[in-house]
Amino acid sequence: MTRLFGDPAEFAEDQLAGFVDLYRDRLRGVPGGVVALPSGPPQVAVIVGGGSGHYPAFAGLVGPGFATGAVVGNIFTSPSAARVYSVAKAAHQGRGVVLSFGNYAGDTMNFGIAAERLRKEGIDTRIVIVTDDIASAAEEQLRRGIAGDFTVFKVMGAAAATGVNLDEVERLGRAANAATRTLGVAFSGCTMPGAHEPLFDVPAGHLGLGLGIHGEPGIRDEPMPTAADLAHTLVNSVLAEAPAHAASKRVAVILNGLGTTKYEELFLLWSHIAPLLREAGHTTVDVEVDEIVTSLDMGGCSLTLMWLDDELETHWRADAYTPGYRKQKAPLVSIDTTLEQGHSAVEVAAVAPDSSAAGRKLAGLASRGLLTMQSSLHEHEQRLGDIDAIAGDGDHGRGMVKGIDAAVAVSTTACSNAAGVAWLLQRSGQAWAEEAGGTSGVLWGAALEAAGMVLTDDRDRYLPSDIVAGAEAFLEAIVDLGGATIGDKTMVDALIPFVDELRARVATGASVQSAWRAASVVATVAAADTAALTPKLGRARPLAAKSVGTPDAGATSLALLVTALGAMSHS
Amino acid sequence: MTRLFGDPAEFAEDQLAGFVDLYRDRLRGVPGGVVALPSGPPQVAVIVGGGSGHYPAFAGLVGPGFATGAVVGNIFTSPSAARVYSVAKAAHQGRGVVLSFGNYAGDTMNFGIAAERLRKEGIDTRIVIVTDDIASAAEEQLRRGIAGDFTVFKVMGAAAATGVNLDEVERLGRAANAATRTLGVAFSGCTMPGAHEPLFDVPAGHLGLGLGIHGEPGIRDEPMPTAADLAHTLVNSVLAEAPAHAASKRVAVILNGLGTTKYEELFLLWSHIAPLLREAGHTTVDVEVDEIVTSLDMGGCSLTLMWLDDELETHWRADAYTPGYRKQKAPLVSIDTTLEQGHSAVEVAAVAPDSSAAGRKLAGLASRGLLTMQSSLHEHEQRLGDIDAIAGDGDHGRGMVKGIDAAVAVSTTACSNAAGVAWLLQRSGQAWAEEAGGTSGVLWGAALEAAGMVLTDDRDRYLPSDIVAGAEAFLEAIVDLGGATIGDKTMVDALIPFVDELRARVATGASVQSAWRAASVVATVAAADTAALTPKLGRARPLAAKSVGTPDAGATSLALLVTALGAMSHS
Repeated sequence: MTRLFGDPAEFAEDQLAGFVDLYRDRLRGVPGGVVALPSGPPQVAVIVGGGSGHYPAFAGLVGPGFATGAVVGNIFTSPSAARVYSVAKAAHQGRGVVLSFGNYAGDTMNFGIAAERLRKEGIDTRIVIVTDDIASAAEEQLRRGIAGDFTVFKVMGAAAATGVNLDEVERLGRAANAATRTLGVAFSGCTMPGAHEPLFDVPAGHLGLGLGIHGEPGIRDEPMPTAADLAHTLVNSVLAEAPAHAASKRVAVILNGLGTTKYEELFLLWSHIAPLLREAGHTTVDVEVDEIVTSLDMGGCSLTLMWLDDELETHWRADAYTPGYRKQKAPLVSIDTTLEQGHSAVEVAAVAPDSSAAGRKLAGLASRGLLTMQSSLHEHEQRLGDIDAIAGDGDHGRGMVKGIDAAVAVSTTACSNAAGVAWLLQRSGQAWAEEAGGTSGVLWGAALEAAGMVLTDDRDRYLPSDIVAGAEAFLEAIVDLGGATIGDKTMVDALIPFVDELRARVATGASVQSAWRAASVVATVAAADTAALTPKLGRARPLAAKSVGTPDAGATSLALLVTALGAMSHS
Repeated sequence: MTRLFGDPAEFAEDQLAGFVDLYRDRLRGVPGGVVALPSGPPQVAVIVGGGSGHYPAFAGLVGPGFATGAVVGNIFTSPSAARVYSVAKAAHQGRGVVLSFGNYAGDTMNFGIAAERLRKEGIDTRIVIVTDDIASAAEEQLRRGIAGDFTVFKVMGAAAATGVNLDEVERLGRAANAATRTLGVAFSGCTMPGAHEPLFDVPAGHLGLGLGIHGEPGIRDEPMPTAADLAHTLVNSVLAEAPAHAASKRVAVILNGLGTTKYEELFLLWSHIAPLLREAGHTTVDVEVDEIVTSLDMGGCSLTLMWLDDELETHWRADAYTPGYRKQKAPLVSIDTTLEQGHSAVEVAAVAPDSSAAGRKLAGLASRGLLTMQSSLHEHEQRLGDIDAIAGDGDHGRGMVKGIDAAVAVSTTACSNAAGVAWLLQRSGQAWAEEAGGTSGVLWGAALEAAGMVLTDDRDRYLPSDIVAGAEAFLEAIVDLGGATIGDKTMVDALIPFVDELRARVATGASVQSAWRAASVVATVAAADTAALTPKLGRARPLAAKSVGTPDAGATSLALLVTALGAMSHS
């Protein structure tokens, strides 16, 4: 929701004051909006506008190569005719004015009245209305303007900057609008400053197909699709509404986020859209995947295509420099497809070295141990995330699952390839670190690798003391990397008692199985002690000065694992 | 919440695929991340990175003048050492590598291991850790890295692009980090792909002061302040942690949005922060108010200052060109403070012309009428917004209130200045249109102005037929501008019966008072008929082909007003 405001009724004016302060090196505030500082010879003034709440539309699009001025209305409300007139007068450079805006009744009337007033004063004024929203009406001229504002304004702004006359700018604007089609979807509503409820709702688990950027009705609500399915809907719908006489299959593209549908989601969606457009024979030109025409904190996105001819492409590709949008031919970048491609950093022998029967037997045990760990971790993934979220970022469950899955995949293959225990543990540890990432990934990976390194694959037999050495190496790797000591509320709190108990039991002649079981009980108790301290980690506490490992969740996951392994050792 | 994904576990890889497709003209994907295509002579490689979910950090910062490569981890999870190594190897241009990242245990370990591996291969590798978050620890070197990543990376990227050696890039990076301080606040949590609940919560109506970008604990939760108070907290806290030996009071500034705290809110907040910094004697240099280091769809923001010396300022101001950030010296823009400032477009005589006693008396009645309308509209503001939200953008209530308040302010002054009814109505209408904007603003403003124009201020008496003529002019202005006819579900549905009834009653010799009362009953009934059609406008219906006026909410507001005026005519 919208949370930062003073007097809600003054939100539009208040935010404009900050905006003008910020960009006062390149534009100036005038009554009703903003005007670019002159950046070249006199040109046709391209004045855009509409309500606030759509940044970078509209004030963020003022600058060289784009709009000459922007009229700023209240949130989601057309600016008055007086404001339009004021901005146009201030922006006029003696070569005429184009007023351009999305097709809404209020904007049409207010900009229309302002145009009349300007013409009465002898200023040649044209109007270009944007009608790109294919969901809003069947007849093209009755459609609303949404993210297609951007392509139309961009083409006119670029054309005006080249010095062409008013007729040309108007003609190109109309051509851009005729070539532009958008379909939007909404996932959630937006909240007006000072309001306690969203302006509108989309049913949970649904999207509003074709819903407008102020919550106006769409075509229908649909169950929320996957990203891949949404890509199909957007591409198919927009292509079905292609202009009758499109000049080419070259298309300018905007994948626009409405506010809370974030960049990574848009990139992911683009990875599904791009192949569909290409399969349909289209060549994409200067694709913009970004927040271009927002709607406060609304969830959703839209896909815009502008079918290009040579003129439109020239102006679409031209440089621009505005507060909310900067386009620049990439300096000094050349595409050299002969460049050496990066190579995987994990370079280890793909084939296991020769191993003894004892080494292979122990490898089998280790592999079964990893499988047991895997099912335990999958079962408790959520719990680990919850514990971690108290003091950390809640990723511990997912990280552990990713790590163990990778380790199991490697170890299973290793066993069927007759690998020994040393090679299996080293490879499994590398895979764990590689896939899991994060703190726990590097610790578990390095620890498994270290345990593997103290063993070798060619021994005739492995003594209980060899297992203890492996456990000690495991512990040592974690202490070396993490720097934690006992009491820091990390997995070390459980691991040190485990290794101590294992060592002590083996020294008294116990079997590895019974020593391991006893050690796992000790580790579980120690982990519970650490976990008991958890409430003290409440939200109001500053971050632990010594941020090593994943506090307490690491101890918990370790306890889960040794318990699982201890249970296995019964069998 | 995060809604677009395929397999949640593959979110980071999937979004990276779309990103790499999008920017393949300037960077290439390598195992573990992305690397900029070469753009000049060999330079020191500046490798940045961390978990995904922070766009434009980190992949969006790769390009000329900024990072050479970015390592991409899973959501909020450090990339593995193997990924770091892979990206650094691919980015290395023979002049050494700097690895830079925020101070988190997982990143420190994974980047550290990769550095060791690179050094073993003879690649000189340095590490610069960012520690800008003043909320996370008292000791500087124990602090987390948050939005200050950006200033540190930017300085090193700009320096490396000038061709300086590895020692210099490392030295400047450490200097940038030592000069950078950030405080963040969170308003709401973020949702991991595939999760049903946010990763963490901030209590409703509160903010989490100093809460980390992955939800790590902050200093404390506080009741949500106003924007002005939040500006004080941020500025005072960051200034209190200024470096001990700051070179100057020139500061680079980032006001960063975390994901759902949108641009307009940030601009508004900046309008409060800027004067505070200036009052404290600071000069702001190249302020960035934008989404710079996000946290999925988290609500909140942070303020970063970097205290500048000449070196840091040079590199902070230098051009850069990356997918998520483009900085360019403004082309051809000159600041000319002698420019003619825009002037108010509402140019009408500030002083009322001479008026007759009858004109002044009728002006008094009109002014009281406007006051009655004002209280009725304030009372029903919410209801009007709710009706409008069904088919429109829900702004009708607020627009009407803004309009009537402006009209009342003008009319009250006009009365005390002995203005006549014609001038009063014209000026009130202009004020209404000016302040309200939107569709209803232009209609009500023009209608009042038209009604005023058919009256004059110098008559000895006003006949009932004069009032009818005023009402007809009011109606005509609305029909002319909006193009609606009866049945279109606009205010015209109530207004035409009102004027017809008024005219008919007056024609039979009724007093204006009784005719007005009767007409107001007719208008109320007609508006109720229109409102009864409202349910048919449900969410699934495409936008009305003829979008004129504000459907049904306009009729309702008109009925409210004429009812209010009818009630007044009793007195």
